[in-house]
Amino acid sequence: MEYFDNAASTKVLEDAAKAALDVMVNRYGNASSLHSLGLESNEILSSCRKEIAKFYLRKANEIIFTSGATESSNIAIFGAVKRNRKKKKIITSSVEHKATENCLNHLEQKGYEIVRIKPRENIFYAKDFIDCVDNNTLMISIMHVNNENGLILPVEDIARMAKAINEGILVHVDAAQSFLKLPLNLDNIDLLSASGHKVNAPKGIGFLFAKKGVKISPISYGGGQEFLLRPGTQATALIKALEVAVKYHVGKRDQLEKKYRELKEIFVESLKKNERICFNFNENCIPSIVNISVKGIRSQVFLQALEEKGFLVSSGAACSKNKDNKTLINLGYSKERADTAIRISFGVETTKDSVLGLIDAINYVEDSVLKYC
Amino acid sequence: MEYFDNAASTKVLEDAAKAALDVMVNRYGNASSLHSLGLESNEILSSCRKEIAKFYLRKANEIIFTSGATESSNIAIFGAVKRNRKKKKIITSSVEHKATENCLNHLEQKGYEIVRIKPRENIFYAKDFIDCVDNNTLMISIMHVNNENGLILPVEDIARMAKAINEGILVHVDAAQSFLKLPLNLDNIDLLSASGHKVNAPKGIGFLFAKKGVKISPISYGGGQEFLLRPGTQATALIKALEVAVKYHVGKRDQLEKKYRELKEIFVESLKKNERICFNFNENCIPSIVNISVKGIRSQVFLQALEEKGFLVSSGAACSKNKDNKTLINLGYSKERADTAIRISFGVETTKDSVLGLIDAINYVEDSVLKYC
Repeated sequence: MEYFDNAASTKVLEDAAKAALDVMVNRYGNASSLHSLGLESNEILSSCRKEIAKFYLRKANEIIFTSGATESSNIAIFGAVKRNRKKKKIITSSVEHKATENCLNHLEQKGYEIVRIKPRENIFYAKDFIDCVDNNTLMISIMHVNNENGLILPVEDIARMAKAINEGILVHVDAAQSFLKLPLNLDNIDLLSASGHKVNAPKGIGFLFAKKGVKISPISYGGGQEFLLRPGTQATALIKALEVAVKYHVGKRDQLEKKYRELKEIFVESLKKNERICFNFNENCIPSIVNISVKGIRSQVFLQALEEKGFLVSSGAACSKNKDNKTLINLGYSKERADTAIRISFGVETTKDSVLGLIDAINYVEDSVLKYC
Repeated sequence: MEYFDNAASTKVLEDAAKAALDVMVNRYGNASSLHSLGLESNEILSSCRKEIAKFYLRKANEIIFTSGATESSNIAIFGAVKRNRKKKKIITSSVEHKATENCLNHLEQKGYEIVRIKPRENIFYAKDFIDCVDNNTLMISIMHVNNENGLILPVEDIARMAKAINEGILVHVDAAQSFLKLPLNLDNIDLLSASGHKVNAPKGIGFLFAKKGVKISPISYGGGQEFLLRPGTQATALIKALEVAVKYHVGKRDQLEKKYRELKEIFVESLKKNERICFNFNENCIPSIVNISVKGIRSQVFLQALEEKGFLVSSGAACSKNKDNKTLINLGYSKERADTAIRISFGVETTKDSVLGLIDAINYVEDSVLKYC
């Protein structure tokens, strides 16, 4: 099977998995224990914190380990709400991941004003977010890169312009799809969520960047772990694996980006001749995601047909399973495009040969489904 | 180094760690993905849920994966509070783990009445909890086994008697120290928290048993994972390792309990001659924890001296690091006993030889510290 669903989850690097195994069976102390095995575990945490912080040019003590980006976003959003009871408005985009979307939907039910900015002709403009900022605005919570088509949102501009109006507005960025792929200046960003499993670390580990002094309250309680913001015994084996994955990606970032660009170009060049295929992305999208629609063939049917040919792609974000794909519609594409969309996402193991194979399979499947109809 | 801190965390079984590695590098689909690699991940979840449910004679769909017992207890307690706004009283014990204790301390600050039942002569009586039940009682939240000295609390009796008075009272049990060690009838228990890393699975995985129909609300939001009670991509590698650990412990439970009883007996027999050593436990404590005090030598000093001799023990619960050990005092032991206590906890790898070595080391250290003073 050729795997083209790296935006949903990735294969763990063998070195990262081996490092996790070593921690599990040899360095299994509780990081809160006072003996040498506890201290050794504590060093695993420190070392990984440093590597993550380095990518964003920030301090290690601003990195809070969590179980993943969903938990990080919950802490960021509800932690901000809990600490700042007076302001009742949150600005977001219309294309957020379920984690942010459903946190904000919940707050809306509780009486918060949630402003969801839409794109114009498939592009988001910082000004549209900033125009909504007022004295009642608690937070701007936005994704860096959309998970369906890889669209990059202008988060740096939004953050800078928001802080210029009101230093007190909290800016939270969901970086689940951009961590280690795109650099980001966090000077005006207070909170950032990311997961390990999108970047070849295991599922179940992620982090929240929480800028020193940021005004959020804990939303769960226990031992004093993670600077009191996230209690519970830290998952040292996963954290060690995450460190290995971070180092790998930092070292290979330029090379990987170049590879993804080339692979995407091959896609575009090969498929643009087929007038039944539309591209659901533009020049503002990251190179590792290719979202296409195939006229007249529903996503799920196409996905299954490709799987029979040995290729695993996605019919949309994994977390939206079994639901209508509203994100593409909210990104400005038609319902017909959304119903027939498939997402192809590259990873560190994707090769040119596998992409050529997938293109052949897409053409073959499209052709045979049409004949059958 | 001989490891005697299994109540804080355990070495992951090699088979469990290898199973986790296999999932990381070969079965890395997102359990929410619709393709075969996603479905395969989903089966990993189902299979582990079944094994855990089997231990408690319950249904698989009552098992919610979390990052560990701390998160489980937060969901249980705050989820109950969120769903049932009218009742404002929670009954607990005076010796809970920080997870329960700090959740309840937070609720107390918010106006909840928290009743903390104390032991009488080092033992808890169900009647003492039940006497406090009234119409305003939302929940009873109690640990099954205390983490400092292994004291078993009469949770089945408390649950049965509470439900007889008022079927609507929620009963939550923190089973972090008892899961796979002691069976528990959950007929009258609504919610139960446990961690994998206390039973030779990795850190970062645990579960909440939530009885079908139990009235709790989600406290975090995202994709629809874990029956909407705990969003976020599931940690399939850790869950696979947990399943291996559960099967191992279920198969060896009688044998392990027998071993721990014998090892504890060796301890008691060898050390009871030394009148400077006190035992901080009684016949209601589980056999795998031995808590002793050594007259005149502070816990931390003794712990370090034992470490120099090659033995890792604990000066108290890992999560209470650097704090006074109030739990032993709340268990009914003197401040002097608490200040000089060390906790020795056995695990699957503990051998008779290592216990004999530890006893020699205790006697040696005690003797030399005294000479030095």
